Formats: sequence, C-alpha cells, structure tokens
Amino acid sequence: VIRVPAEDLMRLGTALFTALGAAEDKARFIAETIVEANLTGHDSHGVIYYLTYAERVKEGYIDPRAEPMVERETPTTAVINGCWGFGQLTAMKAMEVAVEKAERSHIAAVTAYRCNHVGRVGYYTAWAARRGFIAMMFLNVGHPIVTVYGGRGRVLGTNPLSIAIPTGGDPFLLDYATSIVAHGKVKQALLEGERIPRGWIRDREGRETDDPAALEAGGWLLPFGGHKGYCLQLVNELLGAALTGSRSGLDPEEGPPSTNGVFAIAVKPEFFIHPKVFEERCRMILDGVRRCEAEAGMRIMIPGEPEWETRRRRLREGIPIPEALRRSLIALAEELGVDEGLMEALMGKPKRGLSVGMDEES
Amino acid sequence: VIRVPAEDLMRLGTALFTALGAAEDKARFIAETIVEANLTGHDSHGVIYYLTYAERVKEGYIDPRAEPMVERETPTTAVINGCWGFGQLTAMKAMEVAVEKAERSHIAAVTAYRCNHVGRVGYYTAWAARRGFIAMMFLNVGHPIVTVYGGRGRVLGTNPLSIAIPTGGDPFLLDYATSIVAHGKVKQALLEGERIPRGWIRDREGRETDDPAALEAGGWLLPFGGHKGYCLQLVNELLGAALTGSRSGLDPEEGPPSTNGVFAIAVKPEFFIHPKVFEERCRMILDGVRRCEAEAGMRIMIPGEPEWETRRRRLREGIPIPEALRRSLIALAEELGVDEGLMEALMGKPKRGLSVGMDEES
Repeated sequence: VIRVPAEDLMRLGTALFTALGAAEDKARFIAETIVEANLTGHDSHGVIYYLTYAERVKEGYIDPRAEPMVERETPTTAVINGCWGFGQLTAMKAMEVAVEKAERSHIAAVTAYRCNHVGRVGYYTAWAARRGFIAMMFLNVGHPIVTVYGGRGRVLGTNPLSIAIPTGGDPFLLDYATSIVAHGKVKQALLEGERIPRGWIRDREGRETDDPAALEAGGWLLPFGGHKGYCLQLVNELLGAALTGSRSGLDPEEGPPSTNGVFAIAVKPEFFIHPKVFEERCRMILDGVRRCEAEAGMRIMIPGEPEWETRRRRLREGIPIPEALRRSLIALAEELGVDEGLMEALMGKPKRGLSVGMDEES
Repeated sequence: VIRVPAEDLMRLGTALFTALGAAEDKARFIAETIVEANLTGHDSHGVIYYLTYAERVKEGYIDPRAEPMVERETPTTAVINGCWGFGQLTAMKAMEVAVEKAERSHIAAVTAYRCNHVGRVGYYTAWAARRGFIAMMFLNVGHPIVTVYGGRGRVLGTNPLSIAIPTGGDPFLLDYATSIVAHGKVKQALLEGERIPRGWIRDREGRETDDPAALEAGGWLLPFGGHKGYCLQLVNELLGAALTGSRSGLDPEEGPPSTNGVFAIAVKPEFFIHPKVFEERCRMILDGVRRCEAEAGMRIMIPGEPEWETRRRRLREGIPIPEALRRSLIALAEELGVDEGLMEALMGKPKRGLSVGMDEES
C-alpha cells in the first residue's frame, strides 16, 4: 500500500479519461467525483473505477463524448437523457438542474435515464446541501445482485439512497446501498483477501458464508434492515426504474453492465424557515445526539461525519492504494499513453512528503 | 375478543369525538382514519386511540374545535399551523394541499407544526397514491422513546416514514416507525400480557429484555436496521422538527405529550412518464418480485399487501376488540353520554352475522 496525494490521482484520472475520449473539463470532473469517494473513505467507489470505466468505454457501453441533455422541463421538473455518457455527468446534471429549479420554485424533481454507473451518490447530494438545499436521490441499479426480504436469488440492484441536509458546515449525509453493504465492499474484501461478516451475502445455494468470492460465483447480497430496508429497496426500484424509464433489475440485462435510474429532489428550506435558523436547529439536534451516552465500545457518529473526518485526514496523508490496484493503474496509464510524469506518485516517487510503505488503515 | 364491524366503530368514534367537541364531519374523519388503522391490521394505532385522544382533549392538549390553517403558501409550498387540533386533520390537510399543488406544479412540499399525534401515517400517503400521486411523509415525534445507533437512553421519537406509490390498484405502501417497532406494538404486547422479541427494546439499565413493561419503566426502543435505519431516524428529526419548527425529541417536553412535525411531498408522475405506463411498470416490477423464490418458511410480500389483505378480511369479518379495550370503550362512551344504540356491537349484540367469541388472530 502506498499513499498518493488526491491531487495526483485527479490529474491521473483527468489524463486517463481524456485519453479515452472525454473533453478535459468533463474528464477532470469525473476524476474528481471518483477521488472524492476515496477521500471520504469509500474506496469501493474510488479510483478502482478508473479501470472499470476504461473497460466500459472500450466495450462501447460508455460514450466518452456524450453529454446529458435536458429533454423536457417545467419550472419544477426535468427529464434528463444521459445519452449513455459517463453516469457522473448525468447525475450531476440532474442535481444541478434540480437545484436551479428549486432556487426559484422552492422544490424541484428531476429524473434521468440512459445513465451509466454514477458512482458515489453522496457526491451530488452533499454538493447540493453545501449550497443550502435539502437533496434526495433515489436510484435503482439495472444489475441484479441483491435478493429481496425473505427471497432467494438475485432480484434487484443495490439501489442506493442518499439524503443530504445543510447544517452550515459539513452537511448531514445519508448515503448508502439498500443492500446490507455496497457491492463494491464485497469486491474489495475479495481483492484484499479478506473474509466478510456472515450475514452480508448468501452463496449460490442460499447458504450463509463469509467468503467474498461466493458473491461473484452466483451468490447474492441481502437487503439491509429486514422488511423495513426491503421497502426502501423497492421504493428505489419503482422511482429509479419505473418513473424514469430506466432498466429494472428484473429486465433482461441488455446494454451496459451497470445502469442507474436517477430520481432527484431538491428543496430550498427558505420558504419554510429562515435558512440560518434551520441550519442552527439541525446543528443543535445533531449536537444533542452526539452528546448522548454511548454503549460500551461504541461512539455516536453523525451520518456524514466519518466521511468528513476521513476526508480531512486523507487530504493530509494521501489516499492508500493497494499494490494490485497500483499496478493495474500503471498498466492502464501505459496502455493509454499517459504522460509518465502523471504516474510518478504511483511509481513510488512520492511528492510533498507523503510516506510510501505500509499503511495503518490497511 | 369480540369482532365489531368497522362501520360500528366509526359511528361510535364519530359520536365520541362529537361529544368531545369536534364538528361532526371532522369527528367522522378522525374516527375513519383510526378505524382504518384497525382495518389494515395496525391495532396499535386503532380505536385504542379513542381513549388516548379523549384524555388529551380533557387535559387540554388537543383542541377539539381547532382547524388547521394554511399560514403561507406558494404554488409549490405551504406551511400549515395545526393550531393544536386533532393531528389527523393537520396531516390530512398537509397531504391534501401537497396534492392540490402537485396537480398543477408537478411537485409540492408542505410542512405542518403545532400538530398533535397524527396516527397511522400511511393513511395520508395511501390516500394520495390512490389519486395517482407519489407521496412521502417524514415525521418526527416530540416524545423521546428511541435511542440512537450505538447509544443509551431515550433520545428521539419513533419518527415514522411513509412513502406510497400508485400502482393502479392498491398502492405500494412503505409505512413504518424508524424504531425496530412502533411504540404502540410494545404497549399492545403489554396490554395482551405477551413477551416481546429480545432486541426490540432495552430496559432502563440498557439490558436486553423481552418484557414489554420495561419500556414504560424507563427503557427505550432501538432504531431499525443498524446505522442505516438510524440515518433515517435522524432525517425525520431534521425534516420533521427543524424544517417545520416543531418540537424535537431533544427539546424539553412541554405541551402535548405526543407532537408530530410533518414534512410532506407529493409528486405527480405524469410529467415524467404516462401515468398508466408508470403504474403498469410498477406492477410489472412488483409482480416480478412477488414471483421470486422464497426462503424456506417465508413468503414474499409487497409493502402494503399485508395491510390490504387484512383490510379485505376485516371488512368482512369485523375488527377484533380485546376484552380490556372493549370495557374501556364502553366506559368512555357512557361517560360522554353516547347513545346506547351506538354501543350495541360492543355490548355483545353483534349485527350483520358477525361472530362473537374467540378470534383466530388473537
């Protein structure tokens, strides 16, 4: 494991996506959303996706030049066609348009379809919350890997949900898959040769297992929170797939291997309450929660807090890149003819005083 | 346990609330929402509340004559002051106004404050979904009884969430407390002398227990679904209390014993997709989920399905009323001077061929 400065990974990603055909400003933005996933501690959604997206561009699933377009709109709504470009551009466009409209109409809703994998959903909702908006995103994933409550077999996608709420500083941030864990967390355990907690997945025969390889071998993830989490998994399927016209986990899996249907809502608090009062009141409530007594061995955390803490640390210390990933990134950069200077940090020539070596987090 | 026709319980409720001071049409509506909770199987939110609300009227917490008023509004938003009347009137007004506005603006959001206990939240969202709207309600409860993830002690209310989605017939309905179970389910177990599953509550010392009495004796409920359910518990606190200006579970408990802060969103699907296509697609997805293979001993249920099944059965067979509740209802009716004819069904003179005796559900 080496530690690489976020900025170096962003420059590398920008070069990679540009080499793959994206315009430079888009390439930079896509890289930024991905590195932000690493910064906030979600390595499962981080630069490992440089590799995945490069594959999908080469296979023709992601059109690197496509830009999302607003197909139709009203002062409170819009439908966005992602045109099978990078999902990040589509999701960002959906949230931007929702925020612009909510700025004038107090609330707005936007759907997006023909959308590739959007990455970490919290990026878009947190972006809106930092601008003072309550933001919600309901997504389905058109790639079944999760069963339903009481069910067997792969039925629906990991159908992530994110809700961000402004609090003045770092936003409150709910951002999760409606499966017990994100698909990527199992992939990551596999990559790192680790076992997973029993109860995350079932193997292809429906048995409990702690072997992450059992998922790719025909197993499935479980929804979180029993029947209550399952309800949300379905809400995201109905809003993400049915309302937007995107592929359901139950449809034949034609086209891109991972599609997202996106339903975004933005609300401007100002009509309801003075925004400063709202943020203060949110902070007061969250402070009260933070101060409450913890069970032995537990710490009360506010949703988003682990992310913002990790972000501050990793901005200082760099982002840990496991050896296998490091080598794959170098191979991809070489294949795409990316300038060697951009690979320096990965090649074991650290800059800005970052240490190379074993990482306390690994 | 006797079985009483829903209509008889509604007439009784109408008479009770009228005797308590409500206008007859309001009294009838309040009774209907309450009996609807029984019909859909949620006895914890059913006619047991005739007793609770009568107490609260007598204690001055519920103003039986107050009507909710729209304090300010735009084409997409409204703030409703419940004026401390029956919470049912306020919640219904919030959803009605949201639907009216969404009819013209595609989406609308409404907050409500000074709102007493609203009862079963799914009543309002299902009402909107039956009219073709996607409806969401985020509520907090200004009465702490639930701890937070990893916490000890009572911190927040049961903060219910409901999302209803039209499917042509009976709507898809997510409707639950963000605690593992509703407060009322524990009260009901206590009333019926039953143990509760370990893991629902902790006693006042923070120990696991299956004794429902431990909750009222200083114990607390747990949030559902680990840290993921906890995130929703907080979302409902921030939207239900901070955005609406209602009492938080963390505030001093002054005023009514149970207040709700209400945030309602209604979305008209038509702009995004033809409503018939949307409903068909929702049914197709839900049918696919229903058909998937079940684990041994499990049945795949669609959210709302248990409610609608129970409703059809209870409309035929009547609503089971435990003996203690029956006696309390008779005492209340006598105290309020309600016409004896309205009590007949409770007095063991069943009409319309309903059986009196042991109930298979009890």
